[in-house]
Amino acid sequence: MNQLEICFSPELIHLHDLEGKIVVVVDIFRATSTMIAALANGIEEIQTFADLESCRSMREKGYLIAGERNGKTVEGFDLGNSPVAFLEEYYGGKKLAMTTTNGTLAISKSQSADEILIGAFPNFSATIRYIQAQQKDVLIHCAGWKGRFNLEDSLYAGALAKALESTHSSDDDGALSMKTLFEKEGHQLKQYLSKASHAKRLQNQGIEKDIDFCLTLDLYDLVGKVVNDRVRPISF
Amino acid sequence: MNQLEICFSPELIHLHDLEGKIVVVVDIFRATSTMIAALANGIEEIQTFADLESCRSMREKGYLIAGERNGKTVEGFDLGNSPVAFLEEYYGGKKLAMTTTNGTLAISKSQSADEILIGAFPNFSATIRYIQAQQKDVLIHCAGWKGRFNLEDSLYAGALAKALESTHSSDDDGALSMKTLFEKEGHQLKQYLSKASHAKRLQNQGIEKDIDFCLTLDLYDLVGKVVNDRVRPISF
Repeated sequence: MNQLEICFSPELIHLHDLEGKIVVVVDIFRATSTMIAALANGIEEIQTFADLESCRSMREKGYLIAGERNGKTVEGFDLGNSPVAFLEEYYGGKKLAMTTTNGTLAISKSQSADEILIGAFPNFSATIRYIQAQQKDVLIHCAGWKGRFNLEDSLYAGALAKALESTHSSDDDGALSMKTLFEKEGHQLKQYLSKASHAKRLQNQGIEKDIDFCLTLDLYDLVGKVVNDRVRPISF
Repeated sequence: MNQLEICFSPELIHLHDLEGKIVVVVDIFRATSTMIAALANGIEEIQTFADLESCRSMREKGYLIAGERNGKTVEGFDLGNSPVAFLEEYYGGKKLAMTTTNGTLAISKSQSADEILIGAFPNFSATIRYIQAQQKDVLIHCAGWKGRFNLEDSLYAGALAKALESTHSSDDDGALSMKTLFEKEGHQLKQYLSKASHAKRLQNQGIEKDIDFCLTLDLYDLVGKVVNDRVRPISF
């Protein structure tokens, strides 16, 4: 059996050894969900940036640029951070630059891993299948919220830990607790997560459709992987 | 309503503002449980030390010294880190110096709080009553295990968050998830925690009696509070 562990925040990732492992970076609301939506709708590669200006400068290189502040698309940007916006059009062959603070940090702090995947509910089963074909240890790296534990990322981690039980054991307390939480609340994920702090922030911004999308399982049969600092769809 | 939040590790405490709050430091297996056992059996104050030698030097000042390495009492020390050892004798008026790495760190990183309490199951209800008499915000600071999330401290935090629901609300994801976990597993705490990583380590050391003690509710009607870097029993 391979091993599985969960890290609840980029602020704790230095306590884990990533070498030889598949790290699944997860930022459910909404960075990694938006990435999967983008890849599923034709985007061929994504670069992430912590700040707006670096992201904006990618336009000169022919990238679509996506960024949001306070719930609104940044002036002059093509898209915000909404995953459902990517569903309205097909972006075949286009490249995307997007800003995300928590997500970018989690990806950059996962560099010593053997492979980095992008975790989201809309491609949940595809990610499971990919991982089970690799036979490597797994660490789920929750992007969290400004360094703190957050519920949606941690519950995804619990769901993944549970789905991988037949191939990946765990003596990690984080995995044990989140598997239990997912067993109890997984059947009413949206209802439970509506109590979570970040979902409340999102609801205040009126983006209910994004929340629904981010919590929908298995819309897409693709895996997002970080290759040379870019997120790409991979076939396997 | 006052607010309540949970911090899962001393490595994350810098993300929280402690000012004006009651911080409850918790290291269930076994530092804070041992402190409560010691206070309940006559010890009038406890100083904690991260290293053995500083602890040993307190003997000259008339302190009892308690320390353990690899499951055994350190040579020349009066006691180990076992809470049940304190139940065998009455230590009226004595002072205690003890070593604990995770616990000492959590206490020292809580200094900016208005009050620091010592959390343990054997004085659970007394701590609840004390907190509810103060009308302050609460942060539960889990000592964790080498910086990582651990199950027993987090479940205690969930139990406390749940017991304080009538006076302390929370929009903190950590509190929400641990309350849920305690609702699901609280009725079989020992059985559930036997799967946890640190409980497994302790079981390997043959200290089943310590585990039982650490998970027993309301043996004592006292509160442990840190005053001038010393843990003391307080009346209220």
